[in-house]
Amino acid sequence: MRNPSGGSGIDVDRLGDRLAALAELAPVGEFGSCRLALTDADKAGRDLLCRWMEDLALEVRIDVVGNIVGVWTAGATEPGLDPVLCGSHLDTVATGGRYDGAYGVVAGLEAIETLAARGLRTRRPLAVAAFTNEEGARFTPDMMGSLVHVGALTAEAALAAADEDGVTVGEELARIGYLGVWPAPARPPFAFVELHIEQGPVLEHEDVVIGAVTGVQGISWQELTFVGQSNHAGTTPMGLRRDPAYAMARVATFVRELAAELGGRQVGTVGRVLMHPNLVNVVPAWATMTVDLRNTDADTLAEAEGRLAVFAAEVAEAEHLEVSSQSLVRFDPVAFDPAMVDLVEATARRRGLSTLRLPSGAGHDAQMLARVCPTAMIFVPSHRGLSHNPAEHTEPAHLAAGADVLLDVLTDLAGR
Amino acid sequence: MRNPSGGSGIDVDRLGDRLAALAELAPVGEFGSCRLALTDADKAGRDLLCRWMEDLALEVRIDVVGNIVGVWTAGATEPGLDPVLCGSHLDTVATGGRYDGAYGVVAGLEAIETLAARGLRTRRPLAVAAFTNEEGARFTPDMMGSLVHVGALTAEAALAAADEDGVTVGEELARIGYLGVWPAPARPPFAFVELHIEQGPVLEHEDVVIGAVTGVQGISWQELTFVGQSNHAGTTPMGLRRDPAYAMARVATFVRELAAELGGRQVGTVGRVLMHPNLVNVVPAWATMTVDLRNTDADTLAEAEGRLAVFAAEVAEAEHLEVSSQSLVRFDPVAFDPAMVDLVEATARRRGLSTLRLPSGAGHDAQMLARVCPTAMIFVPSHRGLSHNPAEHTEPAHLAAGADVLLDVLTDLAGR
Repeated sequence: MRNPSGGSGIDVDRLGDRLAALAELAPVGEFGSCRLALTDADKAGRDLLCRWMEDLALEVRIDVVGNIVGVWTAGATEPGLDPVLCGSHLDTVATGGRYDGAYGVVAGLEAIETLAARGLRTRRPLAVAAFTNEEGARFTPDMMGSLVHVGALTAEAALAAADEDGVTVGEELARIGYLGVWPAPARPPFAFVELHIEQGPVLEHEDVVIGAVTGVQGISWQELTFVGQSNHAGTTPMGLRRDPAYAMARVATFVRELAAELGGRQVGTVGRVLMHPNLVNVVPAWATMTVDLRNTDADTLAEAEGRLAVFAAEVAEAEHLEVSSQSLVRFDPVAFDPAMVDLVEATARRRGLSTLRLPSGAGHDAQMLARVCPTAMIFVPSHRGLSHNPAEHTEPAHLAAGADVLLDVLTDLAGR
Repeated sequence: MRNPSGGSGIDVDRLGDRLAALAELAPVGEFGSCRLALTDADKAGRDLLCRWMEDLALEVRIDVVGNIVGVWTAGATEPGLDPVLCGSHLDTVATGGRYDGAYGVVAGLEAIETLAARGLRTRRPLAVAAFTNEEGARFTPDMMGSLVHVGALTAEAALAAADEDGVTVGEELARIGYLGVWPAPARPPFAFVELHIEQGPVLEHEDVVIGAVTGVQGISWQELTFVGQSNHAGTTPMGLRRDPAYAMARVATFVRELAAELGGRQVGTVGRVLMHPNLVNVVPAWATMTVDLRNTDADTLAEAEGRLAVFAAEVAEAEHLEVSSQSLVRFDPVAFDPAMVDLVEATARRRGLSTLRLPSGAGHDAQMLARVCPTAMIFVPSHRGLSHNPAEHTEPAHLAAGADVLLDVLTDLAGR
């Protein structure tokens, strides 16, 4: 069995120590961390990353929206070629775990350190990125840094984004010393590979170690509003009601039924409900609800949207309500380069690891990079599917397996 | 057959003309009216009532929350005694009928005019009240005027109540000229009698003319909380979810099914829903919902509560959720003074009218007056049980019968 990296694999203890060091900068619970984008805790994580990059003699480039890219120029036989980039993000949600984002960044360092320790060089340079504000927990939009990196959002717009207190990305970048000078959009890399925890339960449930990510699910976020007749809960006979709360509830149960019927990868979620006046003894005047529909198949996603619209209209008519809908977010499914998916799968098998092709249910920086270069994602299992939660956990053996596959994929892409 | 009023009865044409005059101030459809509390239309109704009272030489008293009481002092042989009060309200819901409330007020005038026309006097004075904002369709709480009248709500709190546009009761009373000087709470009357349309189908279904109202529906307010697992809306397959929003929605639709199955006067309302974190793309960690169940029958109300609890537990178990419930309000049905119920029943029979004892499915000013004095309600049939609807209808013969019974009950209570 030949591994392109030329060895048995990365140092999982060193990988774990680095993840622990990042988490412990701003601990939440026993294992979690809170490093909201561009806070002091995020700065501390960035500082640590930059120190590790400098220890590895990487060339550290910080761009105008604070994306950090460390390029291992010294490890390339042809350092002028476009690099093979890997990476993810360091920011977390308020109640974050220690693996989401950080794992993909630290594993990139680990790949380079492993090659360097063996005295190996690649043809193209390898590089590791940490993109700014992937989570969007403090500043909108999420995946901000990678959006700017690929030219899908202007740096000016990103820098002007403000948090709930009115503090902007630009002000915070300047304050913490990460308002860099490298331009964005950047010249596209030769390829991009993001290693990430699954953040869902599928790999664990299927007892598989490596996910070869086929793409990112299409997302449809809609807000439905039902308007009826506010009335006293005691004096209004059931048959005379025009109850938007009932319509909301009936549509929410339909979303569950619809997902079950369409099957496959279809998911549907009612995450937000608002009613007015939202009082115990008043049939509400109106109710709004969000419906998050996702599917990897564009046609099925569109079918789900269509059936939802028809059902909502039927319920509204039966209850004598007015209904309106508004699209909040609409992304078609993103498919990663098939050759890149094949590469991840073949590489994992060469390591003797079980694999599964699966889509990502969540958004990732990789979907932005896919706009400008061949892109792959590698998933490892998340225990109980938990993420955005201090209890987020991935077994050390799985962390090692994922980083080994990253190492081999990067080596393969960069050439020898 | 002896009638305490000493005659054959009231003038149903005059009664009908007054109801028509009130309805036509602000018509809705052919027969309905919209006189939301303290609007210009409500003022017009109040003005008409005060003119009729003055035409009958009643002493018109307007209190600090706009309740109007006309006292027939001249008709009493002992005018210093506490009066026997009757009445109801003049305000309507937005799509009101012409009988709800107005009938009880106009019939009180009719009783006095009938006695006056015969030159009859009672020992105690008779009085007619129109209480402010009984419906609660514009201002909360409903039954506001009678609540303040009996001292169960302060005038200050009532005056500060605002409608959806932020306009207060106090501002509107001043604007329409009904911010009176008579104090509230008032000295309790000797007794109170409210004549009202049933607003339900029972009397018509039983082919009975006079309902001797035994009391008012019981109320059960519960808050149910479902706790599940907050998860990513994209990465968590449907089969692995523990979704409290789904449980909330399924229980809300069950409340509708339960009310339909129990039938009769059972009503069920989900008026308030809160979820956390209430974000588009997150399966909520928890959801709370209120369930307002009402029944005039204590056993059926208890059955509804029991079945709700069982269903909520079943849904929670199937979805692997924890569920808890908290009782927010629990009132058993209110019982009126048995001697007053007997008096209504005996009086109707003396007139040769069919009678039925039944509870009220809706709230009425009488339930507030019952706190401070012996209280009765008289129901007449509502065609098809419709109310809060322009199609609200009661046969003229039934209107006459109810007013005759009111006349006799008032005369009996006031003494000769």
